Amino acid sequence: MASSTYTVKGMTCGHCAGSVTAEVQKIDGVVDVAVDVPAGQVTITSNAPVSDDAVAEAVEEAGYELVRA
Amino acid sequence: MASSTYTVKGMTCGHCAGSVTAEVQKIDGVVDVAVDVPAGQVTITSNAPVSDDAVAEAVEEAGYELVRA
Repeated sequence: MASSTYTVKGMTCGHCAGSVTAEVQKIDGVVDVAVDVPAGQVTITSNAPVSDDAVAEAVEEAGYELVRA
Repeated sequence: MASSTYTVKGMTCGHCAGSVTAEVQKIDGVVDVAVDVPAGQVTITSNAPVSDDAVAEAVEEAGYELVRA
């Protein structure tokens, strides 16, 4: 099981968190998604490695922007 | 046809606007709801008078707060 935290721009409320969670959960291997709206952080737990590109795509699909480190 | 504009606190994004719109549209006589998120304003068009209490209830049901003048 692996866990990574990403920074996402533009999330302002619980609905935003829900949209991001729904899209990220569709990524193969993801078992949990935790969103911290005020911090702009999304923590993804997965049972297989998840590529940053897949996360960026899911976040954009939800209407937000992944901030690359 | 009557049109009234209300001030609503706490709307931060398009999802918030959607939640408020969905609840206000349920009020009898309402034919159109227009939300301006940055301004925190909700304009309601109806073919019958709508009470402020009904609007306040709908806004609260959506999870936001009507600011009484």
